[in-house]
Amino acid sequence: MQVLVLHGPNLNLLGTREPEVYGTLTLDQINVRLDAFAAERDLQLRMVQSNHEGVLIDAIHDARTWADGIVINPGGLTHTSIALRDAIAGVELPTIEVHLSNVYAREPFRHTSLISPVCRGVIGGLGWIGYRLALEALLDS
Amino acid sequence: MQVLVLHGPNLNLLGTREPEVYGTLTLDQINVRLDAFAAERDLQLRMVQSNHEGVLIDAIHDARTWADGIVINPGGLTHTSIALRDAIAGVELPTIEVHLSNVYAREPFRHTSLISPVCRGVIGGLGWIGYRLALEALLDS
Amino acid sequence: MQVLVLHGPNLNLLGTREPEVYGTLTLDQINVRLDAFAAERDLQLRMVQSNHEGVLIDAIHDARTWADGIVINPGGLTHTSIALRDAIAGVELPTIEVHLSNVYAREPFRHTSLISPVCRGVIGGLGWIGYRLALEALLDS
Amino acid sequence: MQVLVLHGPNLNLLGTREPEVYGTLTLDQINVRLDAFAAERDLQLRMVQSNHEGVLIDAIHDARTWADGIVINPGGLTHTSIALRDAIAGVELPTIEVHLSNVYAREPFRHTSLISPVCRGVIGGLGWIGYRLALEALLDS
Amino acid sequence: MQVLVLHGPNLNLLGTREPEVYGTLTLDQINVRLDAFAAERDLQLRMVQSNHEGVLIDAIHDARTWADGIVINPGGLTHTSIALRDAIAGVELPTIEVHLSNVYAREPFRHTSLISPVCRGVIGGLGWIGYRLALEALLDS
Amino acid sequence: MQVLVLHGPNLNLLGTREPEVYGTLTLDQINVRLDAFAAERDLQLRMVQSNHEGVLIDAIHDARTWADGIVINPGGLTHTSIALRDAIAGVELPTIEVHLSNVYAREPFRHTSLISPVCRGVIGGLGWIGYRLALEALLDS
Amino acid sequence: MQVLVLHGPNLNLLGTREPEVYGTLTLDQINVRLDAFAAERDLQLRMVQSNHEGVLIDAIHDARTWADGIVINPGGLTHTSIALRDAIAGVELPTIEVHLSNVYAREPFRHTSLISPVCRGVIGGLGWIGYRLALEALLDS
Amino acid sequence: MQVLVLHGPNLNLLGTREPEVYGTLTLDQINVRLDAFAAERDLQLRMVQSNHEGVLIDAIHDARTWADGIVINPGGLTHTSIALRDAIAGVELPTIEVHLSNVYAREPFRHTSLISPVCRGVIGGLGWIGYRLALEALLDS
Amino acid sequence: MQVLVLHGPNLNLLGTREPEVYGTLTLDQINVRLDAFAAERDLQLRMVQSNHEGVLIDAIHDARTWADGIVINPGGLTHTSIALRDAIAGVELPTIEVHLSNVYAREPFRHTSLISPVCRGVIGGLGWIGYRLALEALLDS
Amino acid sequence: MQVLVLHGPNLNLLGTREPEVYGTLTLDQINVRLDAFAAERDLQLRMVQSNHEGVLIDAIHDARTWADGIVINPGGLTHTSIALRDAIAGVELPTIEVHLSNVYAREPFRHTSLISPVCRGVIGGLGWIGYRLALEALLDS
Amino acid sequence: MQVLVLHGPNLNLLGTREPEVYGTLTLDQINVRLDAFAAERDLQLRMVQSNHEGVLIDAIHDARTWADGIVINPGGLTHTSIALRDAIAGVELPTIEVHLSNVYAREPFRHTSLISPVCRGVIGGLGWIGYRLALEALLDS
Amino acid sequence: MQVLVLHGPNLNLLGTREPEVYGTLTLDQINVRLDAFAAERDLQLRMVQSNHEGVLIDAIHDARTWADGIVINPGGLTHTSIALRDAIAGVELPTIEVHLSNVYAREPFRHTSLISPVCRGVIGGLGWIGYRLALEALLDS
Repeated sequence: MQVLVLHGPNLNLLGTREPEVYGTLTLDQINVRLDAFAAERDLQLRMVQSNHEGVLIDAIHDARTWADGIVINPGGLTHTSIALRDAIAGVELPTIEVHLSNVYAREPFRHTSLISPVCRGVIGGLGWIGYRLALEALLDS
Repeated sequence: MQVLVLHGPNLNLLGTREPEVYGTLTLDQINVRLDAFAAERDLQLRMVQSNHEGVLIDAIHDARTWADGIVINPGGLTHTSIALRDAIAGVELPTIEVHLSNVYAREPFRHTSLISPVCRGVIGGLGWIGYRLALEALLDS
Repeated sequence: MQVLVLHGPNLNLLGTREPEVYGTLTLDQINVRLDAFAAERDLQLRMVQSNHEGVLIDAIHDARTWADGIVINPGGLTHTSIALRDAIAGVELPTIEVHLSNVYAREPFRHTSLISPVCRGVIGGLGWIGYRLALEALLDS
Repeated sequence: MQVLVLHGPNLNLLGTREPEVYGTLTLDQINVRLDAFAAERDLQLRMVQSNHEGVLIDAIHDARTWADGIVINPGGLTHTSIALRDAIAGVELPTIEVHLSNVYAREPFRHTSLISPVCRGVIGGLGWIGYRLALEALLDS
Repeated sequence: MQVLVLHGPNLNLLGTREPEVYGTLTLDQINVRLDAFAAERDLQLRMVQSNHEGVLIDAIHDARTWADGIVINPGGLTHTSIALRDAIAGVELPTIEVHLSNVYAREPFRHTSLISPVCRGVIGGLGWIGYRLALEALLDS
Repeated sequence: MQVLVLHGPNLNLLGTREPEVYGTLTLDQINVRLDAFAAERDLQLRMVQSNHEGVLIDAIHDARTWADGIVINPGGLTHTSIALRDAIAGVELPTIEVHLSNVYAREPFRHTSLISPVCRGVIGGLGWIGYRLALEALLDS
Repeated sequence: MQVLVLHGPNLNLLGTREPEVYGTLTLDQINVRLDAFAAERDLQLRMVQSNHEGVLIDAIHDARTWADGIVINPGGLTHTSIALRDAIAGVELPTIEVHLSNVYAREPFRHTSLISPVCRGVIGGLGWIGYRLALEALLDS
Repeated sequence: MQVLVLHGPNLNLLGTREPEVYGTLTLDQINVRLDAFAAERDLQLRMVQSNHEGVLIDAIHDARTWADGIVINPGGLTHTSIALRDAIAGVELPTIEVHLSNVYAREPFRHTSLISPVCRGVIGGLGWIGYRLALEALLDS
Repeated sequence: MQVLVLHGPNLNLLGTREPEVYGTLTLDQINVRLDAFAAERDLQLRMVQSNHEGVLIDAIHDARTWADGIVINPGGLTHTSIALRDAIAGVELPTIEVHLSNVYAREPFRHTSLISPVCRGVIGGLGWIGYRLALEALLDS
Repeated sequence: MQVLVLHGPNLNLLGTREPEVYGTLTLDQINVRLDAFAAERDLQLRMVQSNHEGVLIDAIHDARTWADGIVINPGGLTHTSIALRDAIAGVELPTIEVHLSNVYAREPFRHTSLISPVCRGVIGGLGWIGYRLALEALLDS
Repeated sequence: MQVLVLHGPNLNLLGTREPEVYGTLTLDQINVRLDAFAAERDLQLRMVQSNHEGVLIDAIHDARTWADGIVINPGGLTHTSIALRDAIAGVELPTIEVHLSNVYAREPFRHTSLISPVCRGVIGGLGWIGYRLALEALLDS
Repeated sequence: MQVLVLHGPNLNLLGTREPEVYGTLTLDQINVRLDAFAAERDLQLRMVQSNHEGVLIDAIHDARTWADGIVINPGGLTHTSIALRDAIAGVELPTIEVHLSNVYAREPFRHTSLISPVCRGVIGGLGWIGYRLALEALLDS
């Protein structure tokens, strides 16, 4: 099984940015852990991080040609990007939305996701483990 | 590790109620699978299902004396019960909210959870596996 | 034809509570009249009144095993209980919502019913006769 | 007892218009059935259908001189016509609002009735029988 | 000076309709008083009452050919008719909106007028005298 | 008949402030005209202008001891002062609210008056004549 | 192909009413141009203009018996008439909504159309050419 | 004088639950203090605590037969339970609503009470003393 | 203990203003009763009443130099004055908000207090006794 | 005449993405048809598609140097991009907004366009023909 | 150049009031620094502080006779005073609004300024330096 | 001191775009003036302009390695970009938001900034001088 793991804007700051909210692991460290998890299963991952909405959309489009599913943490675009939503709806791959922090416990504008309605499921507030659980869910479905 | 698994109103109908939304497994079948999962880990589960808000609150209060965490699917109370929210906040046990269906893709009144802000995390839309992933998250934290 | 007649919170006060709003008949007197009406038709009624949301939900679930339809006056739960709504939607019995008073002419929070969208129909403002008309509607459908 | 039965805009399309929503009976067929029902009771009906708000208001005003009550299905004017509401309030005849479909289960703009607060009661979602039940309610009151 | 005096829906009920709100004068009596007032000034009035929005709009359009101003009590259309508003804006005659009752002290949906922004002024709550004051204002401007 | 004529904040700027909105007459000129009008009738006026909400409230309270009615242009306090509203309601003198400009055709925050519901009537958009018409209305009632 | 071209309230004022908004062509001139366009194609047009909502609804109902499509400029009814919407939905003819001005650039209450959701498409802001383009769209579909 | 003192959901956690919000006294300790206060006056108290809405409603109904007043801290039900509100309105006993914390300084959903409008008065933010003051108010009225 | 007792706008009308809402005691009578109460305790009171927001703010500022607490009935300013709120927050004296009437049972604009969030507690609906209870609460804290 | 034809995010998926919504033509096929149409008129087209908001803005800026008009389908950015709106307003070229689907009949968040108010006109719901009609409108204006 | 520097309600508390929000400088110290700055330029300042809205309005009116510009920190009146706004708009002097704290990062009711739309510019969150920068802006314009 | 000066979307159009709103200086001319100002102080500036949200975010991230502060004019992204907000919050450099025009006096959607709450301060409406004042503020802090 091939999975695209998409990290949205500002996730490259992980480990240094507001660690009390997002934890102390860097994005590279998370990716290494996910690859280790994938190695134990029949799972290949491609990680993409970008601060550019367009790059994320392009990556989702491209996934049509090779991926069996998507795990996406859309960062701040979660609440504002209809274009990203349309991209996910357009490629029709099973997609799971992940948030490191519990977005529902933060500012009101983080409580509404434009992405969730076109995803199979949502995992939030569980830190980096949320990514791993999302991969498990794709494997088990 | 001891975990209270709480199933809210109408979850006793699982398997017969709107299976296109909630799946074909009965609640007993889900509980059996969760017990099997728990048996592989150092994990003891107590399942409680009730259609009575008060019974759910009592169970949460009681958990202070024996549990290390809570997995809760509050059903329709998710969106209406401040009393349930206060119970979870009051016992200060790590709690993970689970929904079988993707509530964010359904009626607007299901998009807002009064429970999420007092939980550690939320898992939605992944069917019965969501419960298992929630247990994993409690184990890993 | 077997019908569950459900009376929600505070309906046990009928006859004494705000008679200018709800009339002077007691709940027992209404039930007697409904039984008299049923006796003239091929109709058996079971009346349940409770101030407990959970008891009402349990009764709806139980009706799957014996009833052909439900007449429900959800009282104040009309406007607040998604759990009750989900119960009605879950059992898939034809259900008619009844209100003694014209709820649309009272406080704004009584104008919205969470129950109506999952019922076959709604009858409001016609006093105890509304129950009888609801039974007729079930018989005629 | 003399009753004005008012059918609002587009009800002349009944039987052909969206039959999955409004049923397969034509308006004439419904009127015939209502006349048959009236014939069994001490009840005379005058039916009026119009797509013109003004004609409906004129008919309500006129009813002051001859009718003992009104049964009205205001169609799409239900949600928009304060003038119709004022007409009903102005003539002070007992009035019952009827909807063929369950308006509360349709688009949000159909959930609010400007007419209901000035009616004695409301019957919705029960098809043509709703008219008959409304007549019964007028007879019994 | 020639003035069109337009009375909207339900104003033909004046004197009998809710006299505690609208007063005990009939529309004819008001019109007679206004004609008497006009006779004292260089003022000719044409009164039109209709329950039909379209008739009111037609009368406004027609006024372009003969009138120097309009006094309008749009009744319930005040709050709902953009078509009436556009008619007033389209003919570009000085127009004064009159309400017999103090609409701002009644139901919230009567607090917003679609008509006021295209009128020169508004007079409300002063009973039939409001019409006379509106004529004075047209004369003095 | 004795009438208090109250001019609220910024009305002392009349004639110089935004004359395209408020006209070119100064407040003194308006007061002179109103006194001339009063001289023709059995009418005594006391004018008060203040930019201080408290002074306006004090003047209203004081009017209980000598006035038969109030004409008030509350200026910007129209939309914000519950205290002013309570003062008018508290003294129970017939009160008419006047605005020089058509407030309903200006910014949305000028469309809602906290004062109107406790006044007998409202006159807006007719310039200084609005004050004179308000006095007429008090005389005629 | 037979097409009903419906002009709603106030469109009879075209050419004289606010020409900076609606242009200088009269409705007759527009109709002549549309007939000329139709003459070049296999297209017969019937134009109806009315300020009466009911007349517009009647015309739509009538179109079921002879027309293959509808082009409608509902004027001010665009934003307020559920009855008109229901008429269009009820006859199930392909319908295109046209506005001469760019309604989305005007007052907020003109931004929402009750009609658009039941039309095949919408053309706005392009002046009289919008009607011609709507006819082309019907021909090409 | 006989008074029902009702403690709603989660108040059994007092002393352990978020003591910085609710104080360090247990519910039993508060009840003891209230009984001591009652002993000094001609006052008998019955305390009921429940996490079940239905139990609270039943207790209010029951109070009709023996109590002269009610002091209620509805906990989280304050903001969600119309059924509880209807119960209080239905029994027509003087009722005072008490909150330990200043609910108006907490989350927005705690700012609106469905209960307050049917109570004689409200006391909030004064800790356990609020109960005592409520009893005083009942004694003094 | 020294306490500032602040009476806001219109409270000088007490006893004459809408006695069915505010009671028949004059403000002087209330102040006399409060002084009598204070005389029994180690309590000195200074009463200030003003219809001027600025005077109330000045009095609050001044209280920093001599008072141990504040009891304030802000009248209509309760719902509109951020400046008053900031004054209370700025002086950091324990403050209790009192309302004679049950503001939560009146017009919607009286349901929201800008003052409550910066007070220790709120007492409403208990008439003049509310002031006495507020003093007790200050004494007991 | 030179026209920039801008296709926004996800339009590169056309033909494969939700064909029941967007049709079965690919973007290349649409562009070929538009070029064929342009060849018949004095019209040169440059097509740009991008999933990057910034690329679209850059293209609009660049058009100032060579284009006489713009046809834009902003895709999901329609509802979220003020930057795109400002770009169109900034270059002051006649611009027509096109949508393939009838956005007004879809999710509520698609009903509001930030782009429409700065365009000359809008065409929606007519499939690829909408682009052709937009070009005609530019030619005819 | 002559400038009125207006300090609104509660700014006299500076240095003692919530220093973590407003800083430790007293208002006098700020005024001294501003005078020092003015002494270096061709600038004369008059400072006015008041907790009375009316005094602030009077000062603004008075400035017409001597000042070339205004720097105003309206304090809590920023969000509530239309009268203050109208005063600024009425005198037509260039005005700059200053806030010591970053009001946009505080409670939601501080995010909206009624004053800003009638000012030339706004400076917020920069402490006392904001006043100095505002003076510079007036000098440079 | 090193400062990143970020110019958001469409600011490259300055001088040509709507000069009555944004002034006649080009962006290059503004940058030259800012460099001149910097040359007089111990200040080095790097200017970045982009129409790409992602480029702006990348530049902010990069600034962590070399800058002491940021001055940002986010253009249209001010009101829509949570990603930009998160970038500023993530790098924890003192940041000042600048707008050339008075955004609070323009369309309502420009009144809310997602950026302001994570900045130290905001300067708006003062033209290019706003940038210079922002630099001064950074120097002085």
